[in-house]
Amino acid sequence: MRQYQYAKPLNKLINELSKLPGIGGKTAQRLAFHILSMDDKDAFALADAVRNAKTAMTYCSVCGNLTDQDPCAICSDDTRDKSTICVVENPRDVAAMEKIREYRGYYHVLHGAISPMDGIGPDDINLKSLIPRLHDEAVKELIIATNPNIEGEATAMYIARLIKPSGIKVSRIAHGIPVGGDLEYADEVTLLKAMEGRRQL
Amino acid sequence: MRQYQYAKPLNKLINELSKLPGIGGKTAQRLAFHILSMDDKDAFALADAVRNAKTAMTYCSVCGNLTDQDPCAICSDDTRDKSTICVVENPRDVAAMEKIREYRGYYHVLHGAISPMDGIGPDDINLKSLIPRLHDEAVKELIIATNPNIEGEATAMYIARLIKPSGIKVSRIAHGIPVGGDLEYADEVTLLKAMEGRRQL
Repeated sequence: MRQYQYAKPLNKLINELSKLPGIGGKTAQRLAFHILSMDDKDAFALADAVRNAKTAMTYCSVCGNLTDQDPCAICSDDTRDKSTICVVENPRDVAAMEKIREYRGYYHVLHGAISPMDGIGPDDINLKSLIPRLHDEAVKELIIATNPNIEGEATAMYIARLIKPSGIKVSRIAHGIPVGGDLEYADEVTLLKAMEGRRQL
Repeated sequence: MRQYQYAKPLNKLINELSKLPGIGGKTAQRLAFHILSMDDKDAFALADAVRNAKTAMTYCSVCGNLTDQDPCAICSDDTRDKSTICVVENPRDVAAMEKIREYRGYYHVLHGAISPMDGIGPDDINLKSLIPRLHDEAVKELIIATNPNIEGEATAMYIARLIKPSGIKVSRIAHGIPVGGDLEYADEVTLLKAMEGRRQL
């Protein structure tokens, strides 16, 4: 007796959904049945959203951020502070930074971090395009906001060494105990960084 | 200062994804970025799968199961056992039953259960179409496999009372301790059902 199979179009949908990260077989099945129970309008809106996003979204030729216009909305915003560029690993980090509504400079998205273990060198990330941006005399500071892990730190060190001779100030975002965090549960490295980064009150 | 927004096509995708059950804002964002990082081919395959499933899938006019052909693959399979019809709440239950590879009869999918609290009466589920199927003299037994909750039990009772006068045997799947389950952790109702349903060895 052969294994029961859902009808082909349903099976195909379950199969495609289960390729998404964090979506296992059971979840894909649940989502597929939900999609079938949706109004045609809503289901087609989802299908179109996937297709349109993939078609319309591109990378900003200036900063590398995801955008549907080139240069992106941030790079083409003249009211922002031209003196700082914040270097981040990926477009989600831009969104995270923008959420704090404090930083008003520009960004540079690396799309990764240097990781010799994975064979990712400085030429494999979006670093080259950063150099010509620094020739603009308005740029005074480069804030490196790569993730506080081995790859992010290595990338930060690499960029710092690369840029420092040009005289532009290179800074790194602070590591420490997260606000609302508990000293008792902080790992030693974070605690050490928090001590190192202490400031006079 | 206005809130940072992803570019419209990306925002739209995040928005559509977050309408799916169990997909919150953060997950929708993660999925959207993943979709953008996919090959065009794979992303379009996902979009097409959603659209095709929604377009091609319909309900079997005989049993009510989800299908891309009418009657469905099960109803049009003449080699199956014509003497039994198993009544389930939804198409996923058909798949679950088929997985055990033991049951070889036909199905009837109710698409819900009677729930007076939610205003769902016998006419609001796919029950009417079951009656003509029972006029086929080959049908000897109706197995009611609705879920073991209040709505499922009420539905089972209702169908049993409706069908019994016709002389067709009406049975209900057994409740009890799940295989591999632990007596200690079983709830009282399940344990009670398990005791009631005990069989001589």
